Order: sequence, then structure tokens, then C-alpha cells
Amino acid sequence: MKIGIVGVSGFGGSELLRLVASHPAFELAWVGGESTAGQRLDARFPALAGHPAGALTIAPFVPDALGHLDLLFASLPTGRSREPLARVPARVRVVDVGGDHRFVDGWTYGLTELPGQRDAIRRTTRLANPGCFPAAALLPLAPLVRHGLIDTEGIVIDAKSGVTGTGRGGASDFGYVETSEDVFAYGLAAHPHVPEMETALERIAGGAVRIAFTPHIVPMKRGILATCYARPRPGVTQAQLVEAARADYADEPFVRLHAPANGRSAHTAWASGSNLAFLTYAINPRTGHVVATGAIDNLGKGAAAQALQNANLMLGVDEAAGLRGLPVWP
Amino acid sequence: MKIGIVGVSGFGGSELLRLVASHPAFELAWVGGESTAGQRLDARFPALAGHPAGALTIAPFVPDALGHLDLLFASLPTGRSREPLARVPARVRVVDVGGDHRFVDGWTYGLTELPGQRDAIRRTTRLANPGCFPAAALLPLAPLVRHGLIDTEGIVIDAKSGVTGTGRGGASDFGYVETSEDVFAYGLAAHPHVPEMETALERIAGGAVRIAFTPHIVPMKRGILATCYARPRPGVTQAQLVEAARADYADEPFVRLHAPANGRSAHTAWASGSNLAFLTYAINPRTGHVVATGAIDNLGKGAAAQALQNANLMLGVDEAAGLRGLPVWP
Amino acid sequence: MKIGIVGVSGFGGSELLRLVASHPAFELAWVGGESTAGQRLDARFPALAGHPAGALTIAPFVPDALGHLDLLFASLPTGRSREPLARVPARVRVVDVGGDHRFVDGWTYGLTELPGQRDAIRRTTRLANPGCFPAAALLPLAPLVRHGLIDTEGIVIDAKSGVTGTGRGGASDFGYVETSEDVFAYGLAAHPHVPEMETALERIAGGAVRIAFTPHIVPMKRGILATCYARPRPGVTQAQLVEAARADYADEPFVRLHAPANGRSAHTAWASGSNLAFLTYAINPRTGHVVATGAIDNLGKGAAAQALQNANLMLGVDEAAGLRGLPVWP
Amino acid sequence: MKIGIVGVSGFGGSELLRLVASHPAFELAWVGGESTAGQRLDARFPALAGHPAGALTIAPFVPDALGHLDLLFASLPTGRSREPLARVPARVRVVDVGGDHRFVDGWTYGLTELPGQRDAIRRTTRLANPGCFPAAALLPLAPLVRHGLIDTEGIVIDAKSGVTGTGRGGASDFGYVETSEDVFAYGLAAHPHVPEMETALERIAGGAVRIAFTPHIVPMKRGILATCYARPRPGVTQAQLVEAARADYADEPFVRLHAPANGRSAHTAWASGSNLAFLTYAINPRTGHVVATGAIDNLGKGAAAQALQNANLMLGVDEAAGLRGLPVWP
Repeated sequence: MKIGIVGVSGFGGSELLRLVASHPAFELAWVGGESTAGQRLDARFPALAGHPAGALTIAPFVPDALGHLDLLFASLPTGRSREPLARVPARVRVVDVGGDHRFVDGWTYGLTELPGQRDAIRRTTRLANPGCFPAAALLPLAPLVRHGLIDTEGIVIDAKSGVTGTGRGGASDFGYVETSEDVFAYGLAAHPHVPEMETALERIAGGAVRIAFTPHIVPMKRGILATCYARPRPGVTQAQLVEAARADYADEPFVRLHAPANGRSAHTAWASGSNLAFLTYAINPRTGHVVATGAIDNLGKGAAAQALQNANLMLGVDEAAGLRGLPVWP
Repeated sequence: MKIGIVGVSGFGGSELLRLVASHPAFELAWVGGESTAGQRLDARFPALAGHPAGALTIAPFVPDALGHLDLLFASLPTGRSREPLARVPARVRVVDVGGDHRFVDGWTYGLTELPGQRDAIRRTTRLANPGCFPAAALLPLAPLVRHGLIDTEGIVIDAKSGVTGTGRGGASDFGYVETSEDVFAYGLAAHPHVPEMETALERIAGGAVRIAFTPHIVPMKRGILATCYARPRPGVTQAQLVEAARADYADEPFVRLHAPANGRSAHTAWASGSNLAFLTYAINPRTGHVVATGAIDNLGKGAAAQALQNANLMLGVDEAAGLRGLPVWP
Repeated sequence: MKIGIVGVSGFGGSELLRLVASHPAFELAWVGGESTAGQRLDARFPALAGHPAGALTIAPFVPDALGHLDLLFASLPTGRSREPLARVPARVRVVDVGGDHRFVDGWTYGLTELPGQRDAIRRTTRLANPGCFPAAALLPLAPLVRHGLIDTEGIVIDAKSGVTGTGRGGASDFGYVETSEDVFAYGLAAHPHVPEMETALERIAGGAVRIAFTPHIVPMKRGILATCYARPRPGVTQAQLVEAARADYADEPFVRLHAPANGRSAHTAWASGSNLAFLTYAINPRTGHVVATGAIDNLGKGAAAQALQNANLMLGVDEAAGLRGLPVWP
Repeated sequence: MKIGIVGVSGFGGSELLRLVASHPAFELAWVGGESTAGQRLDARFPALAGHPAGALTIAPFVPDALGHLDLLFASLPTGRSREPLARVPARVRVVDVGGDHRFVDGWTYGLTELPGQRDAIRRTTRLANPGCFPAAALLPLAPLVRHGLIDTEGIVIDAKSGVTGTGRGGASDFGYVETSEDVFAYGLAAHPHVPEMETALERIAGGAVRIAFTPHIVPMKRGILATCYARPRPGVTQAQLVEAARADYADEPFVRLHAPANGRSAHTAWASGSNLAFLTYAINPRTGHVVATGAIDNLGKGAAAQALQNANLMLGVDEAAGLRGLPVWP
């Protein structure tokens, strides 16, 4: 199957490139970009010198001319996808890794493990991949909402992200000197992932969901830990939290439940380079808050690997094809 | 004035050593340790070769024999201070940087900027220095509690700490390979700083305070950011939060209010190597939660520099002596 | 083909596990260890929970009982392989990733790209994998020696390694706090890789080779850059250096020549997670020294991936099987 | 004494600011910059909010108008100092931390510990501060050259630097994602510090010196390790190397000799935040090369602290004033 990637020079595009190049049923047939159009791929990524993909030339993005592709991954800056992706021929499936089509009419939201999503993804030709923070937070929260175990007003999500979560454009703000040995909160006033998370949970809850979300940048390249706090419904126990997640994710190939060990949650490093999500559930002994954590690779389950999982479903191949590699450790 | 440090080989002890060595009125007269007793200090810290302090020999800790000191800083592992510190001669002032005497009878709690603390510190000879997480969280929360601006049940404190926060013994669990490129939550079941924080706030509130506290380790050496979430009392505005802090900390030399800039909180890096604490206040627009952050150096305001500030007060010298240095950046 | 790994809990063993698990023709049939024997693999590596390999139990190492394997990878601490590997049944091929059998009778040295090695590797059943520093330094130097372009007395190799190069046992010396923001030289008196490098080059040179080798630890997990300095034979030009390497490595799937760009060598990050080696050649304009750099992943070409390449040859499968994945970036 | 800093927003300027603010005899009377002129200093450095220096306004650089200063530190990008510094009134002493006046007529080179320099520095009003790499390499090499212990043709200097060595402008090329987990060599064709190092050593040697210099960037903020390789004169022993350095640096307050311990050199982390230089000497047992390392903080002995030492001498105050603080560790 012939695959294209537009936005190949960004962080998400780079990870898509790595995953597509190893996929047993995909052929990388086209790569496109904006500022880098005209360069050979191995001029942009010297590590590709000598690799077949390295000889590809980054093309300008002319959407109408991509009718030879079976599927296009679009990893463009937010705000830059709507117009061009509308011009991609209808027969070409599109996975938009960027943020412009989430919960937009005509597009299917693609966090595969949410209730009912898998079948919808199989049938769609226009898929909006979830944001990285929503991927990390919705996976631990969805079973709690679906099984009515938590109060959906006033959920607090405190997320810690590596720098690639900001995108390669955004990352130009993140110099080595300024970023190492530092932590800060951002998005205190607003963040585009909040409406996405609220909408996704409202569809499950059948009612209003309100989230206080505070993202933080920590000095690492990859990884997100979302620490979620919610009020349990009366009488809810930690065992019920775990049981709900176990029931919902029993057959999921990429979700792992991790019971706290020595009081520790799962680690973001466990997911590095993979499509895995590690979930940990606890109840705080002082206040009774539910504390649920989701640990992912923001470029994996939070972007490129999730996109590949969706592409597999859309093209009718094995859902885990190209995604079975173990995480990269150390 | 003759100063001693026991536990000089740990992280907190090392920073005390640096601060005491530069203090205009203090003379480092004695250093002690357990496993390192008998070594010259510059065998333990090669950087001290050629410095007067380097020629000191680390002595075994015989508390009864320290009567020649004016003040002893104790930076021992939790659980190891009670018995020996009880044997230090009464005329020697003691600052316990460890966790064994916080809110223990006969000891004064030493987060200087809390209401009423400064005078009590001036009068005491036995001081319990606050924990690093409490220092980061209590400073932003205290004015909100004191002025009745938040609900004191169900405060959430999500803290991000560098590795030195675990102490040098604890840090032996934190290898470079395991720690870099990773984030995780710990203390999900319990953490010794929770009773300390609750007690400190209850004294201010005059009533019960309950805190859900989740610490995280992030890949850096120094720094803590405490992100605190609380429900405001009805009608409370962001301006009132800031005004309360401004009123309480108007004359404090080491507390800085930082209004969110581009939605960002203060950074932990701003405090590195100093006794400063940077506070940021916001109200979350979706849920109305108060979001208050405290950024400190866990070895500064969270341990050694705070201890020096207390020692200055106890010995009647200028409170900021030895603490006026700018933070270390880059 | 049934594959075993002994020493699976170390850094090299972990990377072997990742590579073997993705290999199209290999089945991971046995894992062994010393201190971890009896544990399930996913208790040691929580990221393997849910993966088939995670259900394997780490077995004690009883070499005589491994007759069912086609090949055994041994990744044991130096000094611990000789006796047990002598007891592995003759029909089981052995790749020793450790340092005990390099240039030992009965064992074939396995830096595949050195002159004449590939055929010897195909025929052997006992293979000594090269050390990580030799892999980084011999690849750039071998063509220069073979074509007589440099003086073989007095080669200087200044190497910079990430922490995993020290092995997981060694890395226990490398705490996060002690390692970040630091560089130092070690092995100033001796290093076990020096005889290995000299012997390998002497076989090519047909005469004595003497090397001054200084390894350094830099604050990263993976990667080695070997910067090699040698005196050129009279009249030798930079073009001749490059031409020699190009001639020798023309058909090599894992060696890449990188001409200096803006005066910069290839980067270690380009090789991360792969079996690639990037070579850069220059002549210093002030002294005429040849300056040749080799950039590898110490766990890739420097250990596990190189071992897999050798195993492929020994078992008669495609040499690049399981090694075609792109490097991991970012 | 009234002190000014132009280029205060750069890395070197920031460290000068920190040092001058703590100096017992200096008053920071003026700060200037180019792109940041007109900003308050605490708008540029939020950590200065509340500090007296924070209220200073960054002024445009009008050299003729600085007659009220006793001394001006200039930390401007290379190539931008010559014209404006020529216009500073003669009575104002100038320390140029940048690279435009090294070994330029009318300017005194200021690596204080080189033979004969201290007296020249005391008498000058125009001082060229050494480059960071020269500071790290000349200190270990100077005694060897002065005492005739090494061959001065064909010295190899392989240096490893943190990112701040490139300057804040240069560091904009060094994003967190691109820099962490990576090492590379640069300056393979030329580097401006080579003529500086050769000239400094030629003045000591009284003859030609030729250096092959290869700098590398390693993932840290501060620190330089220069590993220097040279051929000893016949019969020279390691003890003679050490003895030469001991003789030359016996009374130097900022130079430390560190004998290899377990084969390890001094660490760059030992010098962090200080004016110290740690030197280690060895003779390679295979080739007989002298291997001499210099470990400094590139912003300390390599820039700002060295500049302060020179300023102290020029102004007739205690040479170590403001420089007695211990290194920052951890």
C-alpha cells in the first residue's frame, strides 16, 4: 500500500517515517513538506543516507496530485491543515495527526480504545488523530467515566511532557540551556486540548464534563505523564477503578494496567518508542481523590504510533502491524 | 560564630557547606558524618582541595562533645536524629534539616515566612527546618488559607522534584540511565510531608485541612515545582489571590510573586542556588479551581538556604546574611 | 531458529532482547541471568507486561542444558564467561558480547566489516563480539591502515561514551546527580580495549600498532564518538582518506561516510537504536594530523546490533535481518 | 568602585552579573545591551525581580558616555567590540571577555597564571580575557612548554564543551531535542581559538608551536574538559610533569593539581560556578604520549570569573575578592 507523509520534517513526521519504513505492508511512496520542499530526505535527516527512504525528495504539498496514494499522514502545524486536506482526492484515506479536525464534522476521532471508536475508524476515510495530552489522560479516565465511578465536574489533569510535545516549531523556543534543569507550568489560561478532552469524555458520560488542565514542560525529549485527580462517586473503591479499566481494556493490545509498586506509578520511559500506554490507579488516603495516571510516549501513543494503528484499521490490515516492537530501553 | 554541620556528605550537607563557607559571620568549626568519619573533607569533595574547609577532618558524631559550637546544622537521614540531637548541649543551637522534629514538642517549625514564625524562630534554640515539598507548597497556599480564600478540604498538590530531593542515600536508587528521559509519580499511598503540610495549614486555618499530595521525580538535579489546586470560596477572584500573597509577603526578602506570562508559571530554574521562592496564582477558566504554583530550589529554600536563614535569626545576625547571592544561571 | 540470551538484565542484554523480539526468523526460546534468575522477565522489565517475551522466566545459567538452542547470546560481565561458555554444547552457536574471548584461540573476532572477517564469521560457531570502543574506532581507522595512509605508531584515540558503555553493573557508579553536567577522562593508566584495538589493526597492518586511548564519560545514555588522530604518510590527502574508506565500505549496509558539514563530524545521535556507524575524515590544517571520527550507538554497532549481524551470518540468514529499522530520532 | 557590563544578556554577561553583584568592593553601576536595550534587567531575568540589580534598565551602548565607570566588562559577540571599545574614555578600565582583542597591540592578554602575566595585568587598562578553550588547555600545557618537557610541534587538544561555550547567540542552534543524547566534533577545518593558543604558547616556548584542536559539544550547560596529547622530550617522567606544574602554580589560588585516582582525571563538575581549574597529568603507557587534562567551568575560569580576577588586579583590590565561593554541587 502506498503511503505518503506531509510534514515529514517535524518531530511527529520523523517518527511516522521511522514507523512506516518498518511496516510490513506499507511502502513510503511520497513525502512532503513546506520549508524543506526540494531537499532530499537524507539532507534533512543525515541518518537516512544510504537508506532507501533517504533518496526521496521532499515535495511541495499539492493535495490534488496525491491520487496515487492509499493513505496520507498529515503532520502539519495547527491551523494549516483544513484547506489543503479538503483538497486531497476522496479515494485517498487521510490521517490528520495535527489538531485541526478533532471533533469536526466529516472526521472520525481516532483514540482507538475509546468506546465504539474502533468500528468507526475502520469505516472512515478521514481520521483526526488525538492530541498527545488527551491520549495520556483519556485512556485512564474513560473507564472511570463510562462506569460512573467519578464525578465529571472538576476533574484535575496535571500533565508533564517532554519537549517534543511542543512540535518542532514550538521546540525552537526550547534551547538546551533554558530547558535542562527546569520545570514550569504553562497554558494556565487555556490550552487547545481541553475542549478535545471534555468533548471526548462527554460523549462517554452523556453529560457535562469540566476539566482543569495544567501542562508542564520537564527536561526530556519524549514522554507524557498525565496525573488525573477526580472525586469518586460514594463508596467507590480502588479495586473498582482497576476492575473497570481491566474490563474495558481486556483485549487491547497497547494498554497496560500497572498496579502501584512501592507507591510508584508506571514510568514514561517504559513506553518510549512504542504505542503502549501504562495506566495506574490509586485512591488518595487523605482526601479520597481518585488518582489515575497515564504514561505514554507523546510521539508514540500520543502521535505517530497511534496514527499508524488507525491507518492499519482504515486499510484493513492487522491493527498491530508495524507496532509490535518493544519499547526502546535504555 | 562557630558553626558545625553533621551529615556533611549528603546533598543538603554539601549545600550547607557551600553557604556556611561564604557566610560573613560564620566560621565552619566542625563537620561530622557517619560512614565518612575519618576522611578529610577534600577526600570526599575533591573540589575543596586547596580550600581551607578541605583540610577539615570529618569527625564521628559525638553530640555531647560539641559544646564549643554556637550552632549545629544536622542533616541526617530521617529517623536518625532524635536520640543524638537530644544529647547536644543546651547552649548549642540546633537546626535540624532532617524530618525528625517537625511539629515535635520543644522544637520550633522553621518556615520563616509563615504567620508568626519569625519571632518564634528568633527565640528558639531547637529548630525543625521544613521539608522541601512543604516549603514549595506552603508558601503559595498559606496566604490563601489565612485570608479564607479557599476550601481547605480536598486541596490537591502535584509536585515535581529533581533527584536531590530524595537525599543522597535515596539517590542511589536514581541512576543516570534510569532517571534521564523519565517521569513517574511516587508516594501514591503515603508521604511523610503530608502531615507536616496539613498541620502547618491547620495552625493557620484554625480548622481541618486535608491534602492529596502526589510527588513526581523529573530528570533534573535540583528544583521543585508544586502545583496546588483548590476550590475557591464563592466569589473569590484571581486579583484577591494575588493581593493576599502580596499583603503577607510584602516585606519578605526571599518571596517573589510572578504573574503568569503567556500563561506560564515561574520556573524552578529561576531559584537555583538561592533561597528564593517564586509564586504564581491563576484561576482555571473551565472549573474555577485556584491553581497556585511554588517554584524553589529544593536544596535552597527547601533545605540548606532556609536553614541558614533560620540560623541567622536564631543567632541574631542579619536574616539575609550569606543569602544575597543571585541564583545560578545558566 | 531458537535463540537464547544469558545476561538479559544488563544494558546489552536488554537491547538484544528488543532486537531478537523483532527479528523475522528468530524465536526467543530462553533467557538466563544470575542475580535475577527465577523472576519473570516482565517483573524485571515492566514494559514487557503483556508482551509474549514478558512471560518468560529468567533461568539460572546451566550451559550444558542449552542443547535445544540454535544460538546463544552471552552478555555477561567481563571475567565471567570463559568457564561456562566452554560448557555450551558444540552444536549451539555462541556469540559472546562480553570481553572474555576477543582474540582467543577457537573464537572468531566479529567486527564484520574488517578485511576478511565476514567469511570467517559465516564459518564459525564461536564468535567474540567486538568491544564498543573498538567498534567506534576500528571502523574509521581500518581503511587508513590497510591502504597504508597513516603511521601506525602513536595513534591517539579520544573517545566519548554515554553511561551504558560501562555496563549495568558499572553504571551503578553513575548516579544521575553525579553524571549530569559532568565530563571526565578515565582509563588513564590502562583499558582492556587497547590490546583489542592494537591486535585488530596489527592483523591489517602486518606490523606493530601502538595506540594512546583515552575514554571519557559524557552525560548521555547511549552513543560513542571516537575521535582518532594519526600522522599521515607523506603526501596523503583528505581525498585519499575518503577514497580508501569508500573503497573498503562500498558494499557495507551499515557504514556511512559523512563529509564534514560546516566543519562538523557526524553525530552520535544519528546512530541511536541502530547498527549504523558514521565516519568522518579530515586533515587538521595546522599540524597535518589525520582526524577521523566514528559515531555509533554503543548498544547498537558497539554491542547488541553488531551481535545480531554476526548471528545472522553464522545462521545463514540475511545479514541485515532484524537490523533495517531506522535510528530512533528524536 | 563603579562597574559596568555591556552584553549583560548573554551567558557570559549573566555570570558576570552574578559575580559582580556579590563582589565586596564593586557596585554595579551600569548595564548595557543591544537587542535588549530599554528593558529593565528583571524583565530579561525574572529571577532578579526584587533584587536591587533587577531595577537597572539595560542601556544602549554609547561608549563615550561611560566616563563615570571605573571598569567596563564587555561581553559582546566576536567582531563587534573593536570599534565601540576604542571609544571608551581612557580613564575607564576595560576587560573584553569577547574575542576581538586577544594578542592585539595595546591590549594585555589576561590568563593570569601564565608566566609574567600577573604584573602586566596589574598595569594595564585594556585587557583581553582569554577564550574558554585556551583557558582549559593552556593551564595544563604552559608548565610543560616552559620547562621544555614536551615537543611543541604536533600537540593535539581534544576538548569537550557544554553548550554555553557557544554563546547565547550560538546556543540558539542548540535546541534541547537536538543536543541531549548527542556528541559531535566541530571546527574540523578551523577555530578562532587555535591562533590564540599557539601564540600564547609560542611566547612561553620562544619558538614555533603547532596545535591540532578539535572541540566537541557534549550535552551539558557548563564545563570544558581539554584533553591534551603531546610527545614528551626524551626521558621525561610523569613525576616531572607534575613537578613542573606544582612549581609554576604553587602560589596560585585557583589552580588545583589532581593526581589520577582509579585512572580518572579531574571532573568538570568540580569547577562549576567557580574560577577553579583542575589539572591532571599522565603518561600513556602504550605510546608514551603526555596526556594532560584541564577541567574548568567555561563561564568561570573560561570567561566571567577569570574576567573578575583580572578586574581585581587592574583595580588594585584583593585578587580573589568575589571569587572565594565554593563550586556549586550538586
